[in-house]
Amino acid sequence: MKYLTTENIDYLAIGAAVLGAGGGGDPYLGKLMAKQALMEKGKIPLLDPDDIPDDELVIPSAMMGAPAVMLEKLPNGSEPEAAFRAVESFFGRKAYAVLPIEAGGINSCIPVYTAAKLGLPLVDADGMGRAFPEIQMVTYTIGGVSASPMVCCDEKGNKVVIEAINNNWVETFARTITVAMGLSSMIGLYVMEAKKVKKWGVKGTISLAIEIGKRIIVSHEKKTSAVDSILELTNGYRLFEGKVTDVQRDLTTGFVRGNAKFEGIDAFKGTSFELHFQNENLVGLLNGKPCAMVPDLITILDRETGSPITTEHLKYGQRAVIIGMPCVEVWRSEKGLELVGPRYFKYDYDYVPIEELVKRNAS
Amino acid sequence: MKYLTTENIDYLAIGAAVLGAGGGGDPYLGKLMAKQALMEKGKIPLLDPDDIPDDELVIPSAMMGAPAVMLEKLPNGSEPEAAFRAVESFFGRKAYAVLPIEAGGINSCIPVYTAAKLGLPLVDADGMGRAFPEIQMVTYTIGGVSASPMVCCDEKGNKVVIEAINNNWVETFARTITVAMGLSSMIGLYVMEAKKVKKWGVKGTISLAIEIGKRIIVSHEKKTSAVDSILELTNGYRLFEGKVTDVQRDLTTGFVRGNAKFEGIDAFKGTSFELHFQNENLVGLLNGKPCAMVPDLITILDRETGSPITTEHLKYGQRAVIIGMPCVEVWRSEKGLELVGPRYFKYDYDYVPIEELVKRNAS
Repeated sequence: MKYLTTENIDYLAIGAAVLGAGGGGDPYLGKLMAKQALMEKGKIPLLDPDDIPDDELVIPSAMMGAPAVMLEKLPNGSEPEAAFRAVESFFGRKAYAVLPIEAGGINSCIPVYTAAKLGLPLVDADGMGRAFPEIQMVTYTIGGVSASPMVCCDEKGNKVVIEAINNNWVETFARTITVAMGLSSMIGLYVMEAKKVKKWGVKGTISLAIEIGKRIIVSHEKKTSAVDSILELTNGYRLFEGKVTDVQRDLTTGFVRGNAKFEGIDAFKGTSFELHFQNENLVGLLNGKPCAMVPDLITILDRETGSPITTEHLKYGQRAVIIGMPCVEVWRSEKGLELVGPRYFKYDYDYVPIEELVKRNAS
Repeated sequence: MKYLTTENIDYLAIGAAVLGAGGGGDPYLGKLMAKQALMEKGKIPLLDPDDIPDDELVIPSAMMGAPAVMLEKLPNGSEPEAAFRAVESFFGRKAYAVLPIEAGGINSCIPVYTAAKLGLPLVDADGMGRAFPEIQMVTYTIGGVSASPMVCCDEKGNKVVIEAINNNWVETFARTITVAMGLSSMIGLYVMEAKKVKKWGVKGTISLAIEIGKRIIVSHEKKTSAVDSILELTNGYRLFEGKVTDVQRDLTTGFVRGNAKFEGIDAFKGTSFELHFQNENLVGLLNGKPCAMVPDLITILDRETGSPITTEHLKYGQRAVIIGMPCVEVWRSEKGLELVGPRYFKYDYDYVPIEELVKRNAS
């Protein structure tokens, strides 16, 4: 059996941020929480979903809202458990394990914290294989799993339970409640039997994030670049290398929307790159032509260290390598693209897989 | 035993609007709902709270949000029952009766509808003896009764349950959820044992509203004015008679805030009246000096018919009689004034009872 220990947490957080595709937030506090809980409870089992009996319940635990807010409005530490237990009580059954819901700085750590606190194993799977901004954007929605009942808890002890007619309505209510809670809340939702994870989950996300993180941190120590090693692991592409010449951000809608411009260096000298983001990086244009688009992953790495740079931390003058990675197949289905394709995010592009775009641009 | 029948509903709605002190909304749809349910189920018992065993549960049923919205976003009719049953299920016990929460056009009718639909009696009491805009503004808050668990239901079938640390947080969450539901929701909250109603409830509100309404409607038929008769019944005062010369309204905060100016006629010729309102009428100034203030009741009556005019329906040129009525004693306590005194509503006045103000202004 695999186990997660405190040593894995730095790997996990940095690797999940690579899969977070610019989103998922600053993992600082999440890392501290996960490490502290693991130090108290020791290691926790990391379960292959296929090793869980079909009809056992698993429950995702996550944070909703603006991760930056958590650095000032500190959690009291009992919210994730409160949300998890409240969801559990709806079914009158105990959960078998905690399920991560997305790959991203903070939400890779919160389920570890919850699992360690509750003495439960963690499932090595998530519902995105990356990060997305809205509740309904999980592979489980395609599989007909309801996000309801969803529970939001805050650090003051308030608890709100949502039972909505579909996952989009869950998003609507949860967003407004999270704003009222002070822009962040701890949530439990998408309770499901293990067979749903086996069928619809993105398997191995946690192991993959840990391996990516390990390669980045080891390369720091060796003073080499981790980029090629990450690309090999994720079947990814080096889309661009250059420096940031402009960043525009708009926060008025409750998301970080904007774009960044890059000027090529070295092999990319004379070319330009434009990145459009809404919490996550969604569309990349090389010399004005799309070279990667959502739901495929676009991630900015620091050119020196290979560490991921989130959309919140993009700054003028940064030297970056921009990589693209194919998303999991289910996102490329008709239902998948309805949920998270470029048009959902109001971009006027039909989705073209990254492999195809790279081929086109090379010819 | 007293009973409520369809014949009482017009009386109840118009009388409750008098007690609504300018708030409580347009009862049109609420009246239709209550009448239809009563026609189906026949009469329902109207219980004196003192006749209910101490430890039986009673549950308030009400509408939250903008009553005007209900005229376009029609209820499907099952929401009040859904909210009521959801609250009930938290306690694993059946309710003994439905409890009105406020006196006001729409929220006098909704509990009748719910009681008739569920085949339960209605309690002859409420938690205000008038209307107020926010959830925590009930006598039960002073008595330490929690508004949680509170359930909000919409016509689409969405349900949200709030368990908050105090009644002000319940208001915060319920307001934001109601806005997300499209500005109106049906709610269940303040579940309590009957002994709390006996101690903290405003008793006889329903009977009083029916009696007020009856006097107004009978006087229409006799072509006389009901004003004196209402004043006698409520220990009220004729504060002013005149016509509306100006109305200012601001809806941007989700409430109807504003003021209206009046010019005296007949016995009040040469005097002026200024009314400040926030959903309900809160402060009245006669020639610039306060003559009534919240939590005492200020109600505008049509000078011809004696029918109440809500703040939403105040219009230039209307001829009106402005009456003031003393609130129930519990609102005049320190805790009561903290919850609903003039300073809570940001008016720079210390509360003075209406009897005292009338005396001062007369001397």
